[in-house]
Amino acid sequence: MTTPDAATNDVPQPGPHDLPDVSGLVVGVLGGTGPQGRGLAYRLARAGQKVVLGSRDAGRAKAAADELGLGIEGADNAECARRSDVVIVAVPWDGHRPTLEALREDLAGKIVVDCVNPLGFDKKGAYALRPEEGSAAEQAAAILPDSRVTAAFHHLSAVLLQDPEIERIDTDVMVLGEKRADTDVVQALAGRIPGMRGIFAGRLRNAHQVESLVANLISVNRRYKAHAGLRITDV
Amino acid sequence: MTTPDAATNDVPQPGPHDLPDVSGLVVGVLGGTGPQGRGLAYRLARAGQKVVLGSRDAGRAKAAADELGLGIEGADNAECARRSDVVIVAVPWDGHRPTLEALREDLAGKIVVDCVNPLGFDKKGAYALRPEEGSAAEQAAAILPDSRVTAAFHHLSAVLLQDPEIERIDTDVMVLGEKRADTDVVQALAGRIPGMRGIFAGRLRNAHQVESLVANLISVNRRYKAHAGLRITDV
Repeated sequence: MTTPDAATNDVPQPGPHDLPDVSGLVVGVLGGTGPQGRGLAYRLARAGQKVVLGSRDAGRAKAAADELGLGIEGADNAECARRSDVVIVAVPWDGHRPTLEALREDLAGKIVVDCVNPLGFDKKGAYALRPEEGSAAEQAAAILPDSRVTAAFHHLSAVLLQDPEIERIDTDVMVLGEKRADTDVVQALAGRIPGMRGIFAGRLRNAHQVESLVANLISVNRRYKAHAGLRITDV
Repeated sequence: MTTPDAATNDVPQPGPHDLPDVSGLVVGVLGGTGPQGRGLAYRLARAGQKVVLGSRDAGRAKAAADELGLGIEGADNAECARRSDVVIVAVPWDGHRPTLEALREDLAGKIVVDCVNPLGFDKKGAYALRPEEGSAAEQAAAILPDSRVTAAFHHLSAVLLQDPEIERIDTDVMVLGEKRADTDVVQALAGRIPGMRGIFAGRLRNAHQVESLVANLISVNRRYKAHAGLRITDV
């Protein structure tokens, strides 16, 4: 897109939907043997992305990668981080801090995409936990000062992601972060999955409510027997 | 809907989309002279609901009601509460506690619908405030032990609500509360507005993230020059 007064401003400014080509990036998925990690790895590989699936145990990661196919490779978390340009953090909340602390150097310079939802469960259902740092994403940013931390992929159904019969994931992905260059990459990655859009939705200080909203989607799913997701209207 | 074994269970159970007829209920809007309150009053009256618009000052309420037309009446907040079956709380966050404390008796027995978003603003934009009670809705429930407190209507654009050229508000309304009889009424009210659906989205302990998500929608609006709303998919 060029501006109307191209004569005085001949550098085209990116519009909100102009996103970079990310097809050549390697995507790692830490905690890739869990349902959310497997689902994301599968969808991104199916969309043509090179994916490395990480786990604490390299053998388990390789077994899961072989099962998924699509050229996905398995490695321990450290190797997964080192080999990847973009690293999705899909570990359980109670493994979030120790996993990231152990990978501080391996994740330096990488775009880190936190998709962890800190939730508690009791007989009334799910509820939000509040990390000391404000959110899982802010905890990641505090632990990883040399990484480019973003937050995204919180509201996806692991069931739908993993179902090979489903062609499209008709939902939007809220992408949060401090730097546009980083959130643009993550939005572009989300946009490679058919039916999905990556939508910029603010800074990391506003990640807590995005992470916690999963508790509400769990209530929706229970009431309506659904795999609920979100669409953002008017965008 | 009847069950397959109607002989042994002849009382049809309500499905998740079976909602009561609320067309005869009077809806009050506290803080009805603000943009959100005016917009909700206008949309509900336009959908055929009897609406009483409340303000601290009865004269201002009457002037705003006359301007909106559609049979909307104006009154001071206390009279608005007494005359209504369902009372929407659309006051600014800093007036939330004192307004409700002053109306404790007037709101006894009523369905109260809190739509207040506790937000702060600085040069980086909007951010969530965390009320001592957890959320605005939980604060309302603590102040109003004799009312039937719910939370809803958080994510609507006051601009779209108030624009008479716009026929449909294509968005979903997350409705939270402790009792199904109450949330069903609020869902049914939302559903009277063309394009809108009321979707049950959990208990009040999960209201904070729904209220706070407005900070993210403000970021979306700024980036995409939109009036963003939410749709819940697969429901």
